[in-house]
Amino acid sequence: MRTPLIESPVVNARLGGRLLVKPECLQRTGSFKFRGAFNAITQLDEAKRRAGVVAFSSGNHAQGVAAAAQLLGIPATIIMPADAPAIKLANTRGYGAEVVLYDRRRESREAIAARVAGERGASLIPPYDDVRVIAGQGTVGLELVEQAEALGVTLDGVIVPAGGGGLLAGTATAVAALSPMTKLYSAEPLGFDDHRRSLAEGRRIENDPDARSICDALQAPQPGEITFAINRRLLAGGLAVSDEEVLAAMRVAFADYKLVVEPGGAAALAAALSGKIELKGKTVAVVASGGNVDASTFAAALRAAS
Amino acid sequence: MRTPLIESPVVNARLGGRLLVKPECLQRTGSFKFRGAFNAITQLDEAKRRAGVVAFSSGNHAQGVAAAAQLLGIPATIIMPADAPAIKLANTRGYGAEVVLYDRRRESREAIAARVAGERGASLIPPYDDVRVIAGQGTVGLELVEQAEALGVTLDGVIVPAGGGGLLAGTATAVAALSPMTKLYSAEPLGFDDHRRSLAEGRRIENDPDARSICDALQAPQPGEITFAINRRLLAGGLAVSDEEVLAAMRVAFADYKLVVEPGGAAALAAALSGKIELKGKTVAVVASGGNVDASTFAAALRAAS
Repeated sequence: MRTPLIESPVVNARLGGRLLVKPECLQRTGSFKFRGAFNAITQLDEAKRRAGVVAFSSGNHAQGVAAAAQLLGIPATIIMPADAPAIKLANTRGYGAEVVLYDRRRESREAIAARVAGERGASLIPPYDDVRVIAGQGTVGLELVEQAEALGVTLDGVIVPAGGGGLLAGTATAVAALSPMTKLYSAEPLGFDDHRRSLAEGRRIENDPDARSICDALQAPQPGEITFAINRRLLAGGLAVSDEEVLAAMRVAFADYKLVVEPGGAAALAAALSGKIELKGKTVAVVASGGNVDASTFAAALRAAS
Repeated sequence: MRTPLIESPVVNARLGGRLLVKPECLQRTGSFKFRGAFNAITQLDEAKRRAGVVAFSSGNHAQGVAAAAQLLGIPATIIMPADAPAIKLANTRGYGAEVVLYDRRRESREAIAARVAGERGASLIPPYDDVRVIAGQGTVGLELVEQAEALGVTLDGVIVPAGGGGLLAGTATAVAALSPMTKLYSAEPLGFDDHRRSLAEGRRIENDPDARSICDALQAPQPGEITFAINRRLLAGGLAVSDEEVLAAMRVAFADYKLVVEPGGAAALAAALSGKIELKGKTVAVVASGGNVDASTFAAALRAAS
């Protein structure tokens, strides 16, 4: 689905600039992940498609792969932790996928995925470190530039949430090619700001394994190998946001954009609203990358003091 | 703003049909009202534009007129009750309008609007019973038919929330002209189902003044004169929904479409989800007409048992 590009005159007046929001929460399955999964699967030849696909994920990637496979009429097996939230298991099964549960403490999801792939000839669809997946996520960047042109504006900046960096690398590739004056930034939670630190150091740095954040979708241990090779070349820098800034951004998404955005999906919006880059007189786009948040978490975010 | 047309494979599977949602909550000012206000104001000649516009409303129409006037660079005066929620006063002023407060029990908003119009030469922009306003709201119907065609489908039905019936009359006019096989329905809260009863009787019937509903945007006393002349000719019938069905639809909008929809804005979605018309094997579009709901009301809707 081609998601729209939306803005709020009220927020723009407050910021003294123009903030454009790309709501990937409205994408099929509630996040951008469908784009990469769909592109990766359509690259498989007929025989491989028939043998099906396999993925491991407890989150948005699982739903993206399951829904893309369902739409293309091929079998999908998703390896998920046995203690994953019931709603995520139900959603993944709801898209027609076979869910294989594993014990998070005693089993390796990579080993199970490799076994399923070996037994069935199924193709593994990685969550981010894969050029087909990155290219699929990059359609967000293609649309962003086209939609900004339709509004008659050139983007001064684009901020993209980063976990493993696939959406970021794809979006950056498209934007850098079509709008070379636009500056690109990653947005991450404090403690999981591996892109910010890796970009500053010029090499991939891991997060502290004890770090905690409400942004469950942005907790990859370090930037991907392929994604970082792209991002280190194309990005102007990395931005980090606190949980409080993320909650405030979720409330703005609710009140001013009428969007349901999950914590990780709100990281780029949080970076823009909290002034991590200059917005005065500028036009900046942020990707709101997902909206898969349960009702109690969302209601709590609305209640938190703003 | 051209709002998208979105759907959820999960909801579609549950319904056994295809449900398309037109999210006017994403429209400028958080509701469709901007469309009609903008069209009405652009029909004014240069001299009338300079003299400004006036409107009375405590809700979405106030913000629609204020934002359209601001965008066109002309003065707007909005007559609002002194006890209107602070957030609505602030939003209307935030769009640059002058707000004139009145005492709901002792003063007539119509008389104040007439005085302002007389003193300043300002043009009154009515909330619904005006052909310019109806035509503006009708762009929702134009987009709906174009977007359905782009998906390769013909709409079996379209359901539209109805207060005074302006969005309904405009949408019905466009859809009936471009997609004559599509059946059109109003959606209203029980107790404010004046369109349903008026359509059945063939004449305008008033609501019981003691009726109560959580749908604050859909409480006009009876169908408009011009709007009903259009709607009685074009509609297949009227649907009424309970507050519980509206709350359930708000939760589906949150969970499956990632949209913030206000109670009145969820009436058509509620009618579809609760089976008020046959959806099995059909393709039906509903307009989610607004998203201006405060955080505590929304959080309470999420908490209510589903």
